[in-house]
Amino acid sequence: MFILVNLKAYPCDPVEVATAARDVADDSGVRIAVAPQAAHLSQVADTGVETWAQHVSPNDYGSHTGSTLAEAVAEAGATGTLLNHSENRMKLADIDASLDAAGRADLETCVCANNPEQIAGVTALGPDSVAVEPPELIGGPDPVSDADPDIVRNAVEAAAAVDDDVDVYCGAGISTGDDVAAAGDLGATGILLASGVAKADDPRAALEDLVAPLR
Amino acid sequence: MFILVNLKAYPCDPVEVATAARDVADDSGVRIAVAPQAAHLSQVADTGVETWAQHVSPNDYGSHTGSTLAEAVAEAGATGTLLNHSENRMKLADIDASLDAAGRADLETCVCANNPEQIAGVTALGPDSVAVEPPELIGGPDPVSDADPDIVRNAVEAAAAVDDDVDVYCGAGISTGDDVAAAGDLGATGILLASGVAKADDPRAALEDLVAPLR
Amino acid sequence: MFILVNLKAYPCDPVEVATAARDVADDSGVRIAVAPQAAHLSQVADTGVETWAQHVSPNDYGSHTGSTLAEAVAEAGATGTLLNHSENRMKLADIDASLDAAGRADLETCVCANNPEQIAGVTALGPDSVAVEPPELIGGPDPVSDADPDIVRNAVEAAAAVDDDVDVYCGAGISTGDDVAAAGDLGATGILLASGVAKADDPRAALEDLVAPLR
Amino acid sequence: MFILVNLKAYPCDPVEVATAARDVADDSGVRIAVAPQAAHLSQVADTGVETWAQHVSPNDYGSHTGSTLAEAVAEAGATGTLLNHSENRMKLADIDASLDAAGRADLETCVCANNPEQIAGVTALGPDSVAVEPPELIGGPDPVSDADPDIVRNAVEAAAAVDDDVDVYCGAGISTGDDVAAAGDLGATGILLASGVAKADDPRAALEDLVAPLR
Repeated sequence: MFILVNLKAYPCDPVEVATAARDVADDSGVRIAVAPQAAHLSQVADTGVETWAQHVSPNDYGSHTGSTLAEAVAEAGATGTLLNHSENRMKLADIDASLDAAGRADLETCVCANNPEQIAGVTALGPDSVAVEPPELIGGPDPVSDADPDIVRNAVEAAAAVDDDVDVYCGAGISTGDDVAAAGDLGATGILLASGVAKADDPRAALEDLVAPLR
Repeated sequence: MFILVNLKAYPCDPVEVATAARDVADDSGVRIAVAPQAAHLSQVADTGVETWAQHVSPNDYGSHTGSTLAEAVAEAGATGTLLNHSENRMKLADIDASLDAAGRADLETCVCANNPEQIAGVTALGPDSVAVEPPELIGGPDPVSDADPDIVRNAVEAAAAVDDDVDVYCGAGISTGDDVAAAGDLGATGILLASGVAKADDPRAALEDLVAPLR
Repeated sequence: MFILVNLKAYPCDPVEVATAARDVADDSGVRIAVAPQAAHLSQVADTGVETWAQHVSPNDYGSHTGSTLAEAVAEAGATGTLLNHSENRMKLADIDASLDAAGRADLETCVCANNPEQIAGVTALGPDSVAVEPPELIGGPDPVSDADPDIVRNAVEAAAAVDDDVDVYCGAGISTGDDVAAAGDLGATGILLASGVAKADDPRAALEDLVAPLR
Repeated sequence: MFILVNLKAYPCDPVEVATAARDVADDSGVRIAVAPQAAHLSQVADTGVETWAQHVSPNDYGSHTGSTLAEAVAEAGATGTLLNHSENRMKLADIDASLDAAGRADLETCVCANNPEQIAGVTALGPDSVAVEPPELIGGPDPVSDADPDIVRNAVEAAAAVDDDVDVYCGAGISTGDDVAAAGDLGATGILLASGVAKADDPRAALEDLVAPLR
């Protein structure tokens, strides 16, 4: 089970969360990564935690002011990137081009989508993983296992029908270790979460709770 | 074989092209539709030709100033719509929502995409048809059968692997009847074309040439 | 005082609202226009009411599938267009180009904006009019005269400081004749409204109430 | 005269250019800043050179995956930011909000625009400076002083008519020290340049040539 902590644009200390994530990952053996803002990538990577970008642009090197070049985030220490997060929806053609860009920079990729049809659609583009974000769970209090377990099961099936080498993560509705275990039971091999760790009073304790059922 | 004539924002007379398309369709028995600007839909539909929109917005009824509501284009006489044309690339989530909107308004749908991977991706969203637009052919002089026949074959295979009920059209590189026949030989069941008819000195003659091998 | 009724993507009958607007305008002598979806422009214009588009694209004639060409909306009967409505925010460079497009098609223009700074900004681009839409009033029940009269006064001043030939309309917080009168007292020479007429059980009565203080 | 070197997404070594810029600035007394990709900000700032972002997002802290938070670029060492570069055109409302965001993070701001009307428009939003980028000069070989000197003069006048506290920079057509001097003669108090330094075989020599007439 892979745990990816998305720091979004939260007013948290990225190094504090990254350090906690590194320590909990080392201690538990669970794979944990942290995805900060692009401007914070190098200081997060310096902690030694697995570091992901929140987005990379579809462009290659060139005249692209204000873009987030895949090669630049890799040089800053990222080894993976989210794409098409619900807060950053992309054009289909740009998801495809950003996957190419990520490939050139040796970044692992996780493409987010809303429902099983879109999950099948992005799986066809050949990412390493996809994350299903049921819209009714994003940012809400309900755990995915209670609120809409079928959407995860259906997303896992929809992705497998297109390409069974693509992992499916659960992209919303996770805040406790029980939720992580439930997502795993539904077929997810990873989870995305954000405020549950990034806005926790004690990010380390939040992460320890999440990994407890995985030890 | 279905022939869809996209009028884009060309300075042509939409009624002249529509009338020619209606007559050639009636005379040849070949299915031909015309896709004008939204503001020209009702006058094109009034000719009796099959009328498509160039785009519909992902939104439903509501507070959406400047949108192109699927129900409004249907009321104006459209019975189908293009989506995600290379000149109007859409977010993946919006293609999905526009397909839903088109379904509510009983519009047939054709989603465009650049390459076999994206064709598989949009096929997974459940449109009636998809159109492959090889970027190197868009707007150029080369016929698809010479320049890149494999991209059409591969698109047909990629779509069939996801859902073999979805038709595949050839969205670029068509200007003559021979090109239409070649596209059919590659597995396409329809073609999209634009300037070859819309900017022709004699749109009727251009259409007659296109349908000649299909009679 | 100019009254512009924006039909947005509401499920109203555009011809019913247009006919009522035409009759009330004729009867009262007050200038009233109706802005339907692009696909409904010709049938609205056929009623004889002053007809506006909700948006025009920045492009000229050419390969622009899915655009809303200024010339096409003019051919369908529009004599003016909104731009940059709060539901359809545009890039600054595109507002500028859409104003050029509208000029080529002899469309009157009204550019919306949120606050006095942006009102000054769009006034500098040379439209015929601007409309201030205080974000806290959009779609809400409060009349502009109660909720935030200074934003209208400040918008009028901000526009005049840049170009005093540009009219300033009040783009939110109007639902009754008293609101229209209050907007006029604050310096507005026109108003934009939407649901107050378009979603009224009796659009004609709603319009008659609006023009009552102007007779 | 302020010289701002935009590294875009060029395949240059940002630290090499930054170090050269720092040294030439120190040696000549001319103000020089470097604007790298967000992911490279901290290593550029560590050289001691004045560091700018290429863009900041309009959002504040919060759930905004993939945004470029003004506070994050400031923490990484940026003290200023470009906005609305011709390769990254923004919605008018977003330029306004990004200026607010930059203000919260104490970033100096420079908003780009194409022509005198748009320059007046962005000046009204209250940035520290604006940069005029004549479209016909962007990326081309012609110096601004030869190709279109009036656009700079007119931009300086247009900005001053709205707010004479806002500096006007010349955003294209600069590659030599003579061009810098010419831009100054036209009323510009700064210049933006990119490939002339970032893609130079010897960035230091290129910068020394640029500052020569300013010593």
